[in-house]
Amino acid sequence: MKNKLPYYAVIFTSLLTEEDKGYAEMADQMENLAKSQPGYLGIESAREQVGITVSYWESMESIANWKANTDHLFAQQKGIKDWYSWYKVRICAVEREYDFTK
Amino acid sequence: MKNKLPYYAVIFTSLLTEEDKGYAEMADQMENLAKSQPGYLGIESAREQVGITVSYWESMESIANWKANTDHLFAQQKGIKDWYSWYKVRICAVEREYDFTK
Repeated sequence: MKNKLPYYAVIFTSLLTEEDKGYAEMADQMENLAKSQPGYLGIESAREQVGITVSYWESMESIANWKANTDHLFAQQKGIKDWYSWYKVRICAVEREYDFTK
Repeated sequence: MKNKLPYYAVIFTSLLTEEDKGYAEMADQMENLAKSQPGYLGIESAREQVGITVSYWESMESIANWKANTDHLFAQQKGIKDWYSWYKVRICAVEREYDFTK
Protein backbone atom coordinates (compact mmCIF):
# COMPACT_ATOMS: atom_id res chain seq x y z
CA MET A 1 0.00 0.00 0.00
CA LYS A 2 1.12 3.58 -0.65
CA ASN A 3 -0.66 6.12 1.47
CA LYS A 4 -0.55 9.87 1.76
CA LEU A 5 1.59 10.99 4.69
CA PRO A 6 0.94 11.47 7.48
CA TYR A 7 -1.35 8.57 8.15
CA TYR A 8 -1.77 6.93 11.53
CA ALA A 9 -0.74 3.68 13.20
CA VAL A 10 -2.02 1.92 16.30
CA ILE A 11 0.71 -0.30 17.74
CA PHE A 12 -0.98 -2.85 20.00
CA THR A 13 1.50 -4.98 21.97
CA SER A 14 0.20 -7.71 24.28
CA LEU A 15 0.92 -10.69 26.48
CA LEU A 16 -1.72 -13.38 26.85
CA THR A 17 -2.89 -15.19 29.98
CA GLU A 18 -3.18 -19.01 30.02
CA GLU A 19 -6.85 -18.60 29.13
CA ASP A 20 -7.04 -18.63 25.32
CA LYS A 21 -10.59 -19.96 24.89
CA GLY A 22 -12.19 -18.04 22.03
CA TYR A 23 -9.21 -15.72 21.58
CA ALA A 24 -8.13 -16.74 18.06
CA GLU A 25 -11.69 -16.57 16.73
CA MET A 26 -12.24 -13.14 18.28
CA ALA A 27 -8.90 -11.86 16.95
CA ASP A 28 -9.91 -12.98 13.43
CA GLN A 29 -13.35 -11.41 13.80
CA MET A 30 -11.87 -8.11 14.98
CA GLU A 31 -9.38 -8.06 12.11
CA ASN A 32 -12.22 -8.59 9.62
CA LEU A 33 -14.34 -5.96 11.33
CA ALA A 34 -11.46 -3.45 11.32
CA LYS A 35 -11.14 -3.93 7.55
CA SER A 36 -14.71 -2.76 7.05
CA GLN A 37 -14.29 0.48 9.05
CA PRO A 38 -14.05 3.94 7.45
CA GLY A 39 -10.45 5.11 7.19
CA TYR A 40 -8.94 1.63 7.51
CA LEU A 41 -5.69 1.29 5.54
CA GLY A 42 -4.14 -2.02 6.61
CA ILE A 43 -3.13 -4.38 9.41
CA GLU A 44 -0.04 -6.45 10.25
CA SER A 45 0.15 -8.98 13.05
CA ALA A 46 2.60 -11.49 14.57
CA ARG A 47 2.92 -13.24 17.92
CA GLU A 48 5.87 -15.02 19.53
CA GLN A 49 6.67 -14.22 23.20
CA VAL A 50 4.88 -10.94 22.63
CA GLY A 51 2.05 -10.21 20.24
CA ILE A 52 2.28 -7.16 18.00
CA THR A 53 -0.61 -5.91 15.88
CA VAL A 54 -0.21 -2.69 13.96
CA SER A 55 -3.27 -1.26 12.27
CA TYR A 56 -3.09 1.72 9.91
CA TRP A 57 -5.68 4.47 9.54
CA GLU A 58 -6.31 7.61 7.51
CA SER A 59 -6.97 9.84 10.50
CA MET A 60 -7.09 10.06 14.29
CA GLU A 61 -10.88 10.27 13.91
CA SER A 62 -11.04 6.87 12.18
CA ILE A 63 -8.98 5.41 15.08
CA ALA A 64 -11.36 6.94 17.65
CA ASN A 65 -14.36 5.53 15.77
CA TRP A 66 -12.83 2.07 15.64
CA LYS A 67 -12.01 2.16 19.35
CA ALA A 68 -15.64 3.08 20.10
CA ASN A 69 -17.20 0.47 17.78
CA THR A 70 -19.73 -1.56 19.81
CA ASP A 71 -18.50 -5.03 18.81
CA HIS A 72 -14.91 -3.90 19.30
CA LEU A 73 -15.74 -2.55 22.78
CA PHE A 74 -17.18 -5.93 23.69
CA ALA A 75 -13.97 -7.63 22.49
CA GLN A 76 -11.83 -5.14 24.44
CA GLN A 77 -13.76 -5.89 27.65
CA LYS A 78 -13.52 -9.64 27.10
CA GLY A 79 -9.78 -9.19 26.41
CA ILE A 80 -9.24 -7.38 29.71
CA LYS A 81 -11.33 -9.93 31.61
CA ASP A 82 -9.88 -13.13 30.12
CA TRP A 83 -7.14 -12.96 27.53
CA TYR A 84 -4.58 -10.27 28.25
CA SER A 85 -2.21 -10.19 31.20
CA TRP A 86 -0.70 -7.00 29.76
CA TYR A 87 -1.09 -4.75 26.79
CA LYS A 88 0.08 -1.40 25.56
CA VAL A 89 -1.48 0.78 22.90
CA ARG A 90 0.46 3.49 21.12
CA ILE A 91 -1.20 5.93 18.72
CA CYS A 92 1.31 7.23 16.19
CA ALA A 93 1.58 9.54 13.21
CA VAL A 94 3.51 7.89 10.37
CA GLU A 95 5.80 10.65 9.13
CA ARG A 96 8.13 8.83 6.72
CA GLU A 97 8.25 5.44 5.06
CA TYR A 98 10.23 3.47 2.55
CA ASP A 99 10.26 -0.10 1.35
CA PHE A 100 12.26 -2.71 -0.50
CA THR A 101 11.09 -5.51 -2.77
CA LYS A 102 13.50 -8.11 -4.17
CA MET B 1 8.56 1.90 30.22
CA LYS B 2 6.96 5.34 30.55
CA ASN B 3 8.43 7.91 28.20
CA LYS B 4 7.81 11.57 27.58
CA LEU B 5 5.55 12.12 24.55
CA PRO B 6 6.17 12.46 21.74
CA TYR B 7 8.82 9.83 21.31
CA TYR B 8 9.48 7.96 18.08
CA ALA B 9 8.90 4.48 16.72
CA VAL B 10 10.42 2.63 13.78
CA ILE B 11 8.01 -0.04 12.56
CA PHE B 12 10.04 -2.54 10.51
CA THR B 13 7.87 -5.14 8.75
CA SER B 14 9.53 -7.85 6.68
CA LEU B 15 9.22 -11.08 4.74
CA LEU B 16 12.21 -13.41 4.59
CA THR B 17 13.62 -15.33 1.64
CA GLU B 18 14.41 -19.06 1.91
CA GLU B 19 18.00 -18.08 2.74
CA ASP B 20 18.16 -17.77 6.54
CA LYS B 21 21.86 -18.58 7.08
CA GLY B 22 23.17 -16.22 9.76
CA TYR B 23 19.90 -14.30 10.00
CA ALA B 24 18.93 -15.13 13.60
CA GLU B 25 22.45 -14.37 14.89
CA MET B 26 22.54 -11.05 13.05
CA ALA B 27 19.06 -10.12 14.29
CA ASP B 28 20.18 -10.78 17.88
CA GLN B 29 23.39 -8.81 17.35
CA MET B 30 21.51 -5.84 15.91
CA GLU B 31 19.01 -5.88 18.77
CA ASN B 32 21.86 -5.80 21.29
CA LEU B 33 23.66 -3.08 19.35
CA ALA B 34 20.46 -0.97 19.15
CA LYS B 35 20.17 -1.17 22.95
CA SER B 36 23.56 0.50 23.32
CA GLN B 37 22.72 3.47 21.07
CA PRO B 38 22.01 6.99 22.35
CA GLY B 39 18.30 7.71 22.52
CA TYR B 40 17.27 4.04 22.51
CA LEU B 41 14.08 3.44 24.52
CA GLY B 42 12.99 -0.12 23.76
CA ILE B 43 12.30 -2.82 21.19
CA GLU B 44 9.52 -5.36 20.54
CA SER B 45 9.69 -8.12 17.97
CA ALA B 46 7.61 -11.06 16.70
CA ARG B 47 7.51 -13.11 13.50
CA GLU B 48 4.85 -15.40 12.07
CA GLN B 49 3.96 -15.05 8.37
CA VAL B 50 5.31 -11.53 8.63
CA GLY B 51 8.02 -10.22 10.94
CA ILE B 52 7.35 -7.04 12.90
CA THR B 53 10.04 -5.25 14.88
CA VAL B 54 9.22 -1.95 16.52
CA SER B 55 12.05 0.03 18.07
CA TYR B 56 11.46 3.16 20.15
CA TRP B 57 13.66 6.24 20.27
CA GLU B 58 13.86 9.60 22.01
CA SER B 59 14.24 11.63 18.83
CA MET B 60 14.36 11.53 15.05
CA GLU B 61 18.08 12.26 15.37
CA SER B 62 18.68 9.08 17.39
CA ILE B 63 16.86 7.12 14.65
CA ALA B 64 19.02 8.71 11.94
CA ASN B 65 22.18 7.89 13.92
CA TRP B 66 21.13 4.28 14.36
CA LYS B 67 20.32 3.94 10.65
CA ALA B 68 23.80 5.26 9.80
CA ASN B 69 25.67 3.08 12.33
CA THR B 70 28.45 1.23 10.47
CA ASP B 71 27.68 -2.26 11.77
CA HIS B 72 23.99 -1.66 11.21
CA LEU B 73 24.67 -0.51 7.63
CA PHE B 74 26.53 -3.75 7.00
CA ALA B 75 23.57 -5.75 8.37
CA GLN B 76 21.13 -3.73 6.22
CA GLN B 77 23.16 -4.50 3.08
CA LYS B 78 23.40 -8.19 3.94
CA GLY B 79 19.65 -8.18 4.62
CA ILE B 80 18.90 -6.74 1.18
CA LYS B 81 21.30 -9.14 -0.51
CA ASP B 82 20.29 -12.38 1.27
CA TRP B 83 17.52 -12.37 3.84
CA TYR B 84 14.64 -10.09 2.91
CA SER B 85 12.28 -10.59 -0.02
CA TRP B 86 10.37 -7.52 1.15
CA TYR B 87 10.44 -5.00 3.92
CA LYS B 88 8.83 -1.75 4.87
CA VAL B 89 10.08 0.87 7.31
CA ARG B 90 7.77 3.44 8.87
CA ILE B 91 9.07 6.28 11.03
CA CYS B 92 6.42 7.45 13.45
CA ALA B 93 5.82 9.96 16.20
CA VAL B 94 4.11 8.32 19.18
CA GLU B 95 1.47 10.83 20.19
CA ARG B 96 -0.61 8.97 22.77
CA GLU B 97 -0.29 5.74 24.72
CA TYR B 98 -2.02 3.74 27.41
CA ASP B 99 -1.57 0.33 28.92
CA PHE B 100 -3.23 -2.35 31.00
CA THR B 101 -1.72 -4.77 33.49
CA LYS B 102 -3.78 -7.53 35.12
